[in-house]
This record gives sequence, structure tokens and C-alpha cells, in this order.
Amino acid sequence: MPLDLPLVRPGLPGAEQSAGQDGDAHVRRSVLPGGVRVLSEHMPGLRSATVGAWVGVGSRDETSGHFGSTHFLEHLLFKGTARRSAMDIAEAFDAVGGEANAATGKEHTCYYARVLDTDLPMAVDVIADMVTSARLETDELETERGVILEELAMNDDDPSDVVHEQFASGVLGEHPLGRPIGGTPETIREVPRDAVWEHYRWHYRPQTLVVSAAGGVDHDTLCAQVADALAAGGWDLADDASPTGRRDVARELGAGEHGLPIVGVERSVRRHTEQANVIVGCTSLTATDDRRFTLSVLNAVLGGGMSSRLFQEVREKRGLAYSTYSFASGHADTGVFGLYAGCTPAKVDEVVALMVAEWERLAETPITSAELERSVGQLSGGLVLGMEDTGSRMSRLGKAELVHGALLSIDESLERVRAVTVQDVQELAAELASRPRSVVRVGPFGD
Amino acid sequence: MPLDLPLVRPGLPGAEQSAGQDGDAHVRRSVLPGGVRVLSEHMPGLRSATVGAWVGVGSRDETSGHFGSTHFLEHLLFKGTARRSAMDIAEAFDAVGGEANAATGKEHTCYYARVLDTDLPMAVDVIADMVTSARLETDELETERGVILEELAMNDDDPSDVVHEQFASGVLGEHPLGRPIGGTPETIREVPRDAVWEHYRWHYRPQTLVVSAAGGVDHDTLCAQVADALAAGGWDLADDASPTGRRDVARELGAGEHGLPIVGVERSVRRHTEQANVIVGCTSLTATDDRRFTLSVLNAVLGGGMSSRLFQEVREKRGLAYSTYSFASGHADTGVFGLYAGCTPAKVDEVVALMVAEWERLAETPITSAELERSVGQLSGGLVLGMEDTGSRMSRLGKAELVHGALLSIDESLERVRAVTVQDVQELAAELASRPRSVVRVGPFGD
Repeated sequence: MPLDLPLVRPGLPGAEQSAGQDGDAHVRRSVLPGGVRVLSEHMPGLRSATVGAWVGVGSRDETSGHFGSTHFLEHLLFKGTARRSAMDIAEAFDAVGGEANAATGKEHTCYYARVLDTDLPMAVDVIADMVTSARLETDELETERGVILEELAMNDDDPSDVVHEQFASGVLGEHPLGRPIGGTPETIREVPRDAVWEHYRWHYRPQTLVVSAAGGVDHDTLCAQVADALAAGGWDLADDASPTGRRDVARELGAGEHGLPIVGVERSVRRHTEQANVIVGCTSLTATDDRRFTLSVLNAVLGGGMSSRLFQEVREKRGLAYSTYSFASGHADTGVFGLYAGCTPAKVDEVVALMVAEWERLAETPITSAELERSVGQLSGGLVLGMEDTGSRMSRLGKAELVHGALLSIDESLERVRAVTVQDVQELAAELASRPRSVVRVGPFGD
Repeated sequence: MPLDLPLVRPGLPGAEQSAGQDGDAHVRRSVLPGGVRVLSEHMPGLRSATVGAWVGVGSRDETSGHFGSTHFLEHLLFKGTARRSAMDIAEAFDAVGGEANAATGKEHTCYYARVLDTDLPMAVDVIADMVTSARLETDELETERGVILEELAMNDDDPSDVVHEQFASGVLGEHPLGRPIGGTPETIREVPRDAVWEHYRWHYRPQTLVVSAAGGVDHDTLCAQVADALAAGGWDLADDASPTGRRDVARELGAGEHGLPIVGVERSVRRHTEQANVIVGCTSLTATDDRRFTLSVLNAVLGGGMSSRLFQEVREKRGLAYSTYSFASGHADTGVFGLYAGCTPAKVDEVVALMVAEWERLAETPITSAELERSVGQLSGGLVLGMEDTGSRMSRLGKAELVHGALLSIDESLERVRAVTVQDVQELAAELASRPRSVVRVGPFGD
């Protein structure tokens, strides 16, 4: 039977109650026997629902040397189960106009579907079947190897994909988070079925599974459906196992620890493109670092919108780029922070110098109170606007469970953003500016 | 004062009432003095709204030879008005976490913003200011010329963008719809301010403007806000002008009319990519053709989902592509229909042969009743799922006004899809298969 546990901390006094009501009043969490966690959020008035099955395993967990096998496995779950062919799975979602897909990350894998609420039982049943009972047949695996090689080739033809991947590997070096999620053509050509099968059997267990859903969903019904569907797939949900959390490495690593480079890299990747794609950046905060709210303000001011410093300096004043922005992503034990632009190859040094100058100016001079106020407004409005679709809410629940072990209410998130000071931003900018800095360019340059 | 006109035809008996209630009960339409049309849809329970200002002019309407000036103008509307600098416009939306953007098409241009409903008056005011009072200053124009050249270069570095653009120009030839929306680097380098200014003054008038909004919006309040904001921008809304519709060419053109090629083209565009991107296809139906519902069923069966014939034959059975699908787009006087795949260059002929074989099989053999049923379910579910966000509904209203002159209710759309027969699909497939067929490849081929 489902066991309800407290999950959401109450909103702080003075926070926007309407956002809080929208955000968290309908969130529930249960742990099924066997350790499967189920989270749901009922969104009144919606006729659709998105459900996702999250497994807390990603490309960083590939210890066998068979890089890309997590993503390979994700593909193979759609290729047939004990009860369903690949065509059966495809037809089930197509027949109701649903959208089913999956995403492999560096630290988790998610299988999800968006359907009318009346089709939610079907979606739960099919996804649970895939998670418990994939066959990984040799013939299907060999065909899918070709599909994945095409996917890697497609990504390789997208210069902005290439620069982001090269940047992560440049900044994180030999750290497992530095590897490309999908592997390389070489590793994909060589990965044997046994390695994928072992990965599947080892990581896809009740204790690592999180099911989250949002929209027109009833929590108790969902829990019963999940339990039934997993049992039908042969999973033993009788024992009293506890959920397994993300590895216990939620502290930030300094350079040099776990293979993080102690100096920045300068890297040029040759492509016959019209534009240069360039990122300059460094390691950054973990996903659970308290200063992540400061980082989000810093990011908004530097490169988070049309009024940001990068957009104004690089695009609006000088017309040097169409696309320019800053970004940050956090993982369990480190993260990355970067400034991106796509520009004429002949101007790439000028653009890098401009981006670095704006970054260092943040470290040297406090942002204005108007900038602080605007970025807080931007983050607050974006937080609420970003929570109107079922997919975002489903994702928020899954990540809260896998990354944080607790859901921060929207009210509390807003409060944390509002608490950021001009000094906080300057201190963090200075710290980031002092880290080993890497520059990665993709374009018509010499190797 | 707003004048309410009937817009929505009632749902047919037997159609899903809940979809109809979701879809159309809250739609209202008014024509303001001067001829400005305002459409809105209240979506109960939502705290956000999306508002768009549509001008019924696109790249096909560029008669001056200054190709790309419609898109150039779209950029310049963000660069400052009589009352606001570019930074003022950017700050207005950023400060509330809103998303503001614009899109230039072949037949219309849309400026839109998604904001919290409490910020809707601001969004209406800023967008109306841009539409009525852009300055098009020479300095800003020269800087933006560089930004647009970077945007064209970015698109040119995306091989799937290139193949779609080359396909449209191959199939439509000298027809104005065959031109790339953004122009070319050559035309953008040369377009003078006068041409952009003339384009702006000629096309941006009360009679061509449609404002549509969806979400937490009250229709009468919106009409008053739009009227006030346009009047503040100096537009004369006092006279009794009538709206101007899309040009009266809503009939399908045969090959040879208006410059449509009478034979298909074979075109290879050289790029140093890993993959070949290929499209095979022909001219297709107009946006208002009654057979567009048949075309949507045909498209779903052929290449509209994971269970479609293209996905199954090209990807699932043979592993030849990661991405493969079919598509159709309709305009006022013609349209295009195509089958796409991204694959290894050495296999491109095999993939084209497979795609053509599937297309011709549709013309020669009736689809199964199971396929018909599944595609109807797919389109029906997708129609309802696609209407849950404010942006989709805003867009639906704007296009209904500009393309059809009337809004087809969701119930009626569902009914039209359900009325499609196996014979309808075969007949249309045969007609399309008899048209001049073009094949366009982008990849590492000889010129």
C-alpha cells in the first residue's frame, strides 16, 4: 500500500500565495513496497497528463568502458518487451495522439508520455512494461546500432551541439561527467549486448525507480496502477526495501579532484561552417549548492535575456552575433558555467574578449540595484510561467526526488531568489572568474 | 467600440462535447473602428496569457526585389520606437519573466509575448507601440544588418534547415513562395532603409492587423487596451474601414501557373557533413483546400509517428535513419508535400527509393482500416493535446482569421477528420504521386 511521506515544506510568510497554490497544494509522494517512489501533482481543469519513469542512472555511471550504453539501452526499451513488439509500443501511443519519448542524461534516464488523462492507465502500463521487461533481442539491437550511429552523426552535424559537448569535456576533463552522453561512433560500434543487458539488470530495480506524473491525475489510482504494472512485469514489490538515492557526493569538487583539470583548455575543433561557435567558461556549482540561487541571478544579469549584458553588448550594440547567452548546469559533485556566442569566424577573438570582459566586470563591480530587481522579476515570472504545462511539473517532481530528495516549494524558491544580494552576485562572479578558464571554438579553424 | 461578429460555427451533433467546451466556448471576435480585428479566448484557471499582433504580410509579398525585407523589418521593430529604446523594450518583458519574440512567415508576420495575466496590459502596450511607432533608425538598421547576416549564417550551418529551404525553392521554382523567408546574404547586404520603411508604412495598417490573445484574458478589456495603445501610437481608428483579407487566390495552382515548375528537379547541395539530408516531394494543397483533412490522415499514415510506414520501414526495420517523417504545408494558392530522412551519404539512394516506394504504395493499395482508425485517433488526440497552452490557442485564432476568415471549431475539425475514408486517402496519394516530383539532397556530394 502507498505510504505518504511529507515532501513539501510550507510556503514562507509573505510569499505569493497564488503561486504557492498553483505550485504545490496538489503534490503527493508515496513509497511503494519494494522501494518504488511515486510522486504526482494534480492540476485542476487539465484534460491531459504527463507521466515519467525516472531511473537514477546516466552516462556518468558507465564504469565498463562501454560508453554510450545507457543511451543505447534507452533506445532498446522501445524495441520490444515480453508482451509487446516495437510496433505494439509505437501503436499504443500513436493511436491516442500521445507523445512518448525518452531522454538520457549524465545522471538519470527518463521515459515519458503525454496523453489525455483517460489514456494515463495505458501509458503507465506500457512504460512499466518497457522498464521491467525489455527483451534486448540481438537482431533489434544490431538494427538500433545503426539508428544510434545516425543520431550521433546528426548531432555531429550541429555545430552548437558540438561546441557544448567539447566544452563539457574540456572543462571537466577525465571526470565521468565530461564524457558525451551518447558515446562515440567507436564505442557504439563495439558495445556488446551483454554490457547493455548487465547495465539494464543492475540499474533498473524498484529501489532506483521514480515515477512522477502531473495533470489530470489521481494519486492513489496512479500508485495502484504503477504497482500493478510493475508486478505484471515480474518485479518483486513485496519486500521492504528502501529507495536508493543519488550517490552521496553532493559536494563541490575543486580542480584536481576526481580528474578535474587544474588548468583551462584552449580548443579549436575544425568544421566547414559559416559561423564560429564559441564557449568560454569553467567548472561551477553542484545542483544542490545553496548558492545556486545566486548563480541564477548572476546568469540572468550576464546572459539570460534580451536586456542582459551579453545580449546588449555583443548583439544589440555591435551586431556581432544573432545568438549569445550564458548558461549553468549543476550535477551531483560539480557543474559547468559558460558564455556562448555564434559569430563570424574572423571576429571570434573580439567576441571572446567582449564576453570575458563582461564576466570580469561582474566580479569587479557590483551590479546595479535595477539589474538585481529586474533579474529577480525575470526569474520569478519565469518560474511561474514555466509551471503551466504538465511536462514541466512532471519533470520538476522527478528531479526533486533524484537530485534533492525533497521538493522545494515554488514559494520557497521565489523567496530564495529574492534573498540574493548584490554582494552575493559579485562574490560568486569573482570566484568563478578565478577558476581555470577554458575556451572552445568550433568552426573553420586549423586543428 | 468593439463590434462582436459571429465567428465559431456550432459543433456538430455527436462530436465530443468536452473537447468543444474546451475549444471554443470562450472565443470572441471584434472589429474595432478602423478595421483592426481582435480575437480572444479565455482559458479558465490560467494565470498567464499569450498575445500576438499579426500582420498579413510575409516574404511572398516582397515585390521590390529587396528579398528578406519583411524579416529585416521584424527585427527592427524591436530596435526602438518614438517612446521606447531597444533596451526599454527588452527590459519591459525581462522584468516580468515574459517571453517576447516574433516570427516572419511566407504569408504573415507575428509579434507575440507570453506573460502573467497581470502583465498583459504592458505586453499589449509595448507590442502596439512597436507595430505603430518603430523608428527604423539608420544606425540601428546598420547594426541589425550584421545580426541578420549572422542569423542567415547560423541557418546555413544547419543542414536540415538548408534541405527544407532548397526543397521549397526546387518544388515551387520562381513562384514567390519558393523564396527563402530571410533573403540571402547578398539581398540583406543591399536592402536600403527606404525599402524597409516603405514596406512598414504600406503593410502595417489598421485594416491588415489582427490581435489575438489566449489565457487569462477578458475580451472587452483587451479590445479597449488595443484601441488605446494603437491610438497612442497615432493610428487613426475613427474611420469605418473594413479589414483586408488575404489575397483572393485561394485556389490551387497547377504546375506551370504562376511560375510553378512543370517538371521536378534533382538537386544536390554540397556540405561537409556526416549525414545526407534528403527530401523527396511535390506541390500540394492550399491551406483552405477541403481535402486538407484527407492530407493530414495520409501524412499520419505515411510519416506522422513512430508507427508510421516511413518510421517502421526506414528506421525500425533497417536502421537507416534516426529521423524520418513526412510533412505538408499549405499556403493561399499552393503548398508543398515532402518525405524527409537524414542518413549515411552512401545509403541516400536506397533511402530515397524506400521513401518513394512507400509513397507509391499509398497510391496503389488502400490503407488498412486499422491504419485509418489509428491515424484518426492520433490526429484527434493530438488536436486536443495541442490546445492546452496559451501560445497554440493564440496562434490558432490568428491563423483562422488570416488564412480562413473563420474559425473551424475543434469539434468540427474532429468531425472532418473522422469523415475521411480509405478511398479518399488513396485518391489523394495517387494525385500527389502523379505530380512533378523533386529530390533535394544536402551532404558531401559533388555540386
